Amino acid sequence: MPTRRKKTPELVVHDIAIGTGATGSRTESDSLGDVQVPADRYWGAQTQRSLVHFSIGDDRMPKELYHAYGYVKKAAALVNHAGGRLDAARKDAIVQAADEAICGRLDPEFPLFVWQTGSGTQSNMNVNEVLANRASQLLGGRLGDKSPVHPNDHVNLGQSSNDTFPTAMHLATLMKVRRDTLRQVRALAEAVMTKAEQWVDVVKTGRTHLQDATPLTVGQEWSGWAVQLHGAADRLEDSLHAISELAVGGTAVGTGLNAPPGFGDEVVATLSQLTGEALRPAPSKFAAQGSLDAMVSVSAGLRGVAVALVKIANDMRWLASGPRAGLHELVLPENEPGSSIMPGKVNPTQQEAMVMVCLQVMGEDGIVAAAGSQGNFELNAMRPVIIDNVLHSATILGDACDRLREFSVTGVRLDRARIDEFVGASLMLVTALSPVIGYDKASAIAHKADDEGVSLREAALASGIDPEEFDRVVDPAAMVGDPRRDVARAVNVTTAPPR
Amino acid sequence: MPTRRKKTPELVVHDIAIGTGATGSRTESDSLGDVQVPADRYWGAQTQRSLVHFSIGDDRMPKELYHAYGYVKKAAALVNHAGGRLDAARKDAIVQAADEAICGRLDPEFPLFVWQTGSGTQSNMNVNEVLANRASQLLGGRLGDKSPVHPNDHVNLGQSSNDTFPTAMHLATLMKVRRDTLRQVRALAEAVMTKAEQWVDVVKTGRTHLQDATPLTVGQEWSGWAVQLHGAADRLEDSLHAISELAVGGTAVGTGLNAPPGFGDEVVATLSQLTGEALRPAPSKFAAQGSLDAMVSVSAGLRGVAVALVKIANDMRWLASGPRAGLHELVLPENEPGSSIMPGKVNPTQQEAMVMVCLQVMGEDGIVAAAGSQGNFELNAMRPVIIDNVLHSATILGDACDRLREFSVTGVRLDRARIDEFVGASLMLVTALSPVIGYDKASAIAHKADDEGVSLREAALASGIDPEEFDRVVDPAAMVGDPRRDVARAVNVTTAPPR
Amino acid sequence: MPTRRKKTPELVVHDIAIGTGATGSRTESDSLGDVQVPADRYWGAQTQRSLVHFSIGDDRMPKELYHAYGYVKKAAALVNHAGGRLDAARKDAIVQAADEAICGRLDPEFPLFVWQTGSGTQSNMNVNEVLANRASQLLGGRLGDKSPVHPNDHVNLGQSSNDTFPTAMHLATLMKVRRDTLRQVRALAEAVMTKAEQWVDVVKTGRTHLQDATPLTVGQEWSGWAVQLHGAADRLEDSLHAISELAVGGTAVGTGLNAPPGFGDEVVATLSQLTGEALRPAPSKFAAQGSLDAMVSVSAGLRGVAVALVKIANDMRWLASGPRAGLHELVLPENEPGSSIMPGKVNPTQQEAMVMVCLQVMGEDGIVAAAGSQGNFELNAMRPVIIDNVLHSATILGDACDRLREFSVTGVRLDRARIDEFVGASLMLVTALSPVIGYDKASAIAHKADDEGVSLREAALASGIDPEEFDRVVDPAAMVGDPRRDVARAVNVTTAPPR
Amino acid sequence: MPTRRKKTPELVVHDIAIGTGATGSRTESDSLGDVQVPADRYWGAQTQRSLVHFSIGDDRMPKELYHAYGYVKKAAALVNHAGGRLDAARKDAIVQAADEAICGRLDPEFPLFVWQTGSGTQSNMNVNEVLANRASQLLGGRLGDKSPVHPNDHVNLGQSSNDTFPTAMHLATLMKVRRDTLRQVRALAEAVMTKAEQWVDVVKTGRTHLQDATPLTVGQEWSGWAVQLHGAADRLEDSLHAISELAVGGTAVGTGLNAPPGFGDEVVATLSQLTGEALRPAPSKFAAQGSLDAMVSVSAGLRGVAVALVKIANDMRWLASGPRAGLHELVLPENEPGSSIMPGKVNPTQQEAMVMVCLQVMGEDGIVAAAGSQGNFELNAMRPVIIDNVLHSATILGDACDRLREFSVTGVRLDRARIDEFVGASLMLVTALSPVIGYDKASAIAHKADDEGVSLREAALASGIDPEEFDRVVDPAAMVGDPRRDVARAVNVTTAPPR
Repeated sequence: MPTRRKKTPELVVHDIAIGTGATGSRTESDSLGDVQVPADRYWGAQTQRSLVHFSIGDDRMPKELYHAYGYVKKAAALVNHAGGRLDAARKDAIVQAADEAICGRLDPEFPLFVWQTGSGTQSNMNVNEVLANRASQLLGGRLGDKSPVHPNDHVNLGQSSNDTFPTAMHLATLMKVRRDTLRQVRALAEAVMTKAEQWVDVVKTGRTHLQDATPLTVGQEWSGWAVQLHGAADRLEDSLHAISELAVGGTAVGTGLNAPPGFGDEVVATLSQLTGEALRPAPSKFAAQGSLDAMVSVSAGLRGVAVALVKIANDMRWLASGPRAGLHELVLPENEPGSSIMPGKVNPTQQEAMVMVCLQVMGEDGIVAAAGSQGNFELNAMRPVIIDNVLHSATILGDACDRLREFSVTGVRLDRARIDEFVGASLMLVTALSPVIGYDKASAIAHKADDEGVSLREAALASGIDPEEFDRVVDPAAMVGDPRRDVARAVNVTTAPPR
Repeated sequence: MPTRRKKTPELVVHDIAIGTGATGSRTESDSLGDVQVPADRYWGAQTQRSLVHFSIGDDRMPKELYHAYGYVKKAAALVNHAGGRLDAARKDAIVQAADEAICGRLDPEFPLFVWQTGSGTQSNMNVNEVLANRASQLLGGRLGDKSPVHPNDHVNLGQSSNDTFPTAMHLATLMKVRRDTLRQVRALAEAVMTKAEQWVDVVKTGRTHLQDATPLTVGQEWSGWAVQLHGAADRLEDSLHAISELAVGGTAVGTGLNAPPGFGDEVVATLSQLTGEALRPAPSKFAAQGSLDAMVSVSAGLRGVAVALVKIANDMRWLASGPRAGLHELVLPENEPGSSIMPGKVNPTQQEAMVMVCLQVMGEDGIVAAAGSQGNFELNAMRPVIIDNVLHSATILGDACDRLREFSVTGVRLDRARIDEFVGASLMLVTALSPVIGYDKASAIAHKADDEGVSLREAALASGIDPEEFDRVVDPAAMVGDPRRDVARAVNVTTAPPR
Repeated sequence: MPTRRKKTPELVVHDIAIGTGATGSRTESDSLGDVQVPADRYWGAQTQRSLVHFSIGDDRMPKELYHAYGYVKKAAALVNHAGGRLDAARKDAIVQAADEAICGRLDPEFPLFVWQTGSGTQSNMNVNEVLANRASQLLGGRLGDKSPVHPNDHVNLGQSSNDTFPTAMHLATLMKVRRDTLRQVRALAEAVMTKAEQWVDVVKTGRTHLQDATPLTVGQEWSGWAVQLHGAADRLEDSLHAISELAVGGTAVGTGLNAPPGFGDEVVATLSQLTGEALRPAPSKFAAQGSLDAMVSVSAGLRGVAVALVKIANDMRWLASGPRAGLHELVLPENEPGSSIMPGKVNPTQQEAMVMVCLQVMGEDGIVAAAGSQGNFELNAMRPVIIDNVLHSATILGDACDRLREFSVTGVRLDRARIDEFVGASLMLVTALSPVIGYDKASAIAHKADDEGVSLREAALASGIDPEEFDRVVDPAAMVGDPRRDVARAVNVTTAPPR
Repeated sequence: MPTRRKKTPELVVHDIAIGTGATGSRTESDSLGDVQVPADRYWGAQTQRSLVHFSIGDDRMPKELYHAYGYVKKAAALVNHAGGRLDAARKDAIVQAADEAICGRLDPEFPLFVWQTGSGTQSNMNVNEVLANRASQLLGGRLGDKSPVHPNDHVNLGQSSNDTFPTAMHLATLMKVRRDTLRQVRALAEAVMTKAEQWVDVVKTGRTHLQDATPLTVGQEWSGWAVQLHGAADRLEDSLHAISELAVGGTAVGTGLNAPPGFGDEVVATLSQLTGEALRPAPSKFAAQGSLDAMVSVSAGLRGVAVALVKIANDMRWLASGPRAGLHELVLPENEPGSSIMPGKVNPTQQEAMVMVCLQVMGEDGIVAAAGSQGNFELNAMRPVIIDNVLHSATILGDACDRLREFSVTGVRLDRARIDEFVGASLMLVTALSPVIGYDKASAIAHKADDEGVSLREAALASGIDPEEFDRVVDPAAMVGDPRRDVARAVNVTTAPPR
């Protein structure tokens, strides 16, 4: 009943630095009774209860979620004020507290474990309690009084955990992926593309089934990696469309009970303004609260990037294998000693870290999908495990791209001698002969060279091929098609705006 | 060397029914030598070798792949003929054989196991051998002679397994998902939506955390399911964009060696015409042959549908639980006796089958992603396991939607008495009091009712709430918001064309 | 009430071949009414209903399950007869029909889809119907009459699907894994071990992080693979302990209702006799029917084998890579032409098939675990998806071991020249110098050799190492420890009886 | 060359508290050159490089691994000293430093990220550097001098990351699982068993397919959960057998190069003494270093517990659903307010947290298996991702068991009125009639009752069943078999020593 509280028109927001200035403990309460909380903390009874009841490992709800929740509470306060349901002073105080949450200054006030109630209610109440206490403090109140700002009646006004928690999940994921992960993945793709352009004409042996195949250029090979990465990034970006839809306004079960008409739409519009993201109200709050399908789809987008990166990182480390008993077409930068026992060893550690990160991301995606399927009726009560895994995956995937780019791709070099040696020795150049002499005869020549350990040219000539025709037809540089066109096309693909 | 073969202008396509008319065995050969094959089969040496070497379980490469391969071979023959590389008679014969493959008439000729070479070469050669022998037969030749139509030099002309197999994979998946799976999923969504409209006004108890929550209508609940399904279908449909890009033209390693310039683009254009699908050349053949990222993304789309369906099927079977000791808001059609020992038992078997299908689809998606990540250099050699799982998932997911719709959703009824009884007894109607008397006092009333086993009204009145105010505020029908608007909005969402 | 049926003492088992000798359709019935079934089939109404309602894809319940169910029905009939609940004629007829099921002669009578009721009731009823009709036929009755042998009252006497289906699952899995999969895996391990002994002294370059490392012998490397395989097989064998516990006797919910006291124990004892397996009654029928934890554990055992085989198959194909631009220490047998476009190409196709099989097994294991977790109360209703995946995995994993052994391991050869060349060129032999001159100085020498492209010896001597000391210390053959002891130890491990 | 260092017999271990007493930075070096490290830290150049190059997210290598590594370094120092390779002073200093690591006092010195080199070399070097600097300090040396104690030549003497890192992995996992996880799981099982005994005679409605089934007692149901948990714990305990085998002694590639003969066996024996665990040398170092199969198997053991707990937690929360519109046979303790908007709501939050934890564990197990399969040749370079996930899963799974036991199982109560009401209304009691009147007639009665909404007794009597016979046969208490025997048997199972 905020209306009755309007009897306190004297409320003003004071300039009070963050901090309670207290030690020991303070009594807070909720509908189950009193609880002692650390006096130097803003949180209240429900946060404290959760800390006790859910002390499971050391996984804490990700900070990005609370930053996003700050936006939600700020937007709700603005809308509630505009609608005459929240006076200016309380609105201002809540907005200031929310701004402090948004920029991370209240991070230590959000200590809850990931493994808690499946709706995220305890984290919502953690936010409500902290913002209420902080706002009350700003308005001259006393912590724990729930006055002048009450966690449920003011900060949570018109809201439920059931609609705001998925709203904050979507918002946190959207901002993390768009602002960090996508940027990091595309920067790696650009670095790869730069190498593709640099080495557009270097002819090398292709490999299929790990076996020698017909030649291509290093630039062609690297351009394929870049296109893979951009394609995966495009699909990840596409997946953000669905999480731009927000559940806020549905309250407890999607019907909007206790929220005024239009409340959800107004909060979404305000959130768009505050964040600069193109947000939309979810077309069905029942779907938006009973499921987390859009989160599952973003997770699949992250996995898609990981799938591409496993391939690329594996290619890189195999191409760098050796130096003497491996392929060693690539020379990776040496960032650290490779072995505690073998002196002078250089290992493809960035690529190994990347593969491990990708396996982690692929596995966490499976967790997200499993949890996404376990909704019941009007609520999917597996939210914390989903947001934790998605934000974690988005973070380590992006960071691993940065490190790989910075410490391995930028400084990579070619072992030209090795590359040339392989091309010269290849038997699969015989493929160029196939249209001239037929598949079966060409095959016999390749087998002869392999069996006798001679060069393809020797075997061909011994099989009656004319030396001049051989030299004309079997020209590796002529067998790679049009690498400059291919690389240019890849540049186009990778710089085109996503559809 | 097709050019030299032009000395046989007398070739004409005869009208010969499918069938070799032979028994016993026939000698076929390849570059490794002679092989005996069953004389009543069109396949050749490489198919026979594969049958021997890869007899692993009883998983066979899916027929849809061979139908799609038929299109690829037909298109290639048309393009080769138009380019002067294949004479009219051979072209006609190959086209007829390919048409027979497309429509399934050659299905028994494609017996290979899924577990074979990772490039799918053996299945490509199976197609090449069968079409070559069939086309040779049509042209009056003898099976096994590789003349007048040669499997490599004519049927595979300008192609490699490395570019055509992923082309056939994309095509088969595209046609299966667009023509079957999506249609089946959307039909189920429509059937669900029909029920939502029918029951738009039936007030029921909402449930969050499996616990009683504020009310909504049956129509609202079902509309949420329909929106979930359509959203998942939209995302699946989006994923088809990427697999509309085809690798054909890249040949062995992506450079297009042994294919004339423009060959790939022409084959893609021809395939678009033949299939009516909007196909595009892959912008990077290196990416398209070294990875299967687009397939991984379609698989994620299928998984997304499965994730939604687990939730929906679980909701249905829980709502139908009972009849006496469960929720029993829904009465499912009784399709079969439920128990071999408990007479009269009715079980939610369609929903159980659906959940199992969805777990299978979710698991197969994980296989696809794992396999998708294991490409090396110019080839992902995990193609068979990917196409087998994707087509299998698309099939069982779609069929399960059909069965659920047909045998359980269409005939489902409400147990109105039970629904009303639950609404009447609910304590969470107290939520409507919360804005009037505050969260804490409302909470006390709900607890009182629960502890004392009395109705909410009794507890409220005993707590001093005015009876008239109670009856005015605590009105379930008034607590569900605007179900007609919600359901109408869901209809809009679900009938809108996908973005 | 079998007792009342004793009024038909004239029943005798006739000698009637399998087959109904009828065409068209026949009326069968169950508690929901009449159903037309194909007259040439033994199955009844519930099987027919299931075929209609669960036409989802083309996955059929595995035949091994029905063979195991044959044992269960036979054992139950024997115990029921011994207990005076089933007369001799009916017992004999059911036993004969069950024997026909056990040996596969009734396989075509068991057509049901995997995707059916989650308890497997329809497959149990399929068995009951077929055995009842076949037994009735043997006793001179008419198909469809449920007399003289009734599917529920006689064949299912004292049983429920809820206890017999998991019993048949355990039995089918136990027999498949012990008799086939384990044997196939260990045969592969033996073949690998044979190579290890053959090549015990061949010194080669070790590789860690894909980079050159200190030497070992080929025999040591292969012995590691063999030990891996046997270890995984041991753990798989251990997992059979848990599935040797059978649920039979629990009937509907684990209490044993409608089964006489001791029934379950007697059936288990009879099953042990009939199968030769050491079976035990499940200590808690509630656990055995509400969960499928033991199946999940066998699945993990299969996965363990797959995990080892991915590593081994990948090692093999990498070691065989080349022939010119790869490692090519191994020369794999050439079983088929490798490419439709590149003549003379040989690919590691058995290893590719193995890796694909293993990815499939690992993914199916995830499905089994997910389904295993989804039990509710007195039943896990995800049984069909679990038994289908476990038996499928056991089959393809074992078969792939056979093929890999037969077509790739047995005939594999070494490229000794390549192996010696790599050893000679290795820089990591410097490790032997490390204890003599210290890690840091040894590292400098290795780097010098790498930077200058010279041999390790050249770099060492240029760094002031005495040539004689170098030759004494840096002796690859002396750096491999005691390969004969290592290989002998591996033989011991792999021939020891599992603990 | 430790021998030469013996010229410093004057070395004594001083009594110096942990801490460097320095600020700013210090120069450390490795084979790649100099690096500045924080002067207040013991770590050296390689640790510092790793911090820079692998700043990916915020996942740090788990502390338990470093504690285990402390044991490995201590044991190696003891063995090296006993073998005359390390003088007493250095041995004493290293042992003291290692003891400080073991008990966690050096935890802040081990800051490395999980995502690093796949061999764990950087964490091994982190340990070597910290122990060397700390030991040097204790011996009066200066940090950064690598003297008198050198990280490679002394602390790592006779070792490689390749053999010690998996040794530390096994040891850390073994101690964590045996000392914490297993104890926590079994304590939960005991708490469940206590309830089973308490409620051994309370008859309730069984449920299969979520549908009403024949009755059992609450004690029987709970005893099934306890047996499930103990069975899963037994299998987890079995899996520890394999990780009791240690790789130490294999050094770089398994051959034991640079380790004296018998070194590995002696270190293992010493580790057994130090830790009290029954450790054994790995029978094949090649298998032990090239794979992590034993870790995959422990992970499967953890997953097995999770699979059981999902089922049990789901059962609990469903049985507690309501209070008015759910099953509500159980009354869970109320630990916190359930909703920010719905006053008085009580949610099954411990169960939700448990299910989320289990989904996480099941997913992390998939990561472990995937990583376990990706070894190459003499090294599996996916170690960090494996140890991180296994220890994380072991931790959260155990802690969640503690919380569930403490805050939900111990205080759970029955809603006896609801339980009795359900039993009274059940139609599936008809099953008891089936042996008397036959399955088909019993089925008709149940259907009649359901259709007409009457009691089973009413329907039976209307169908001509004699009232007295009905009352004699249809007695729920008589239909549950022998619950006291069942529960006693479960107690036996759960208190028996594991086989």
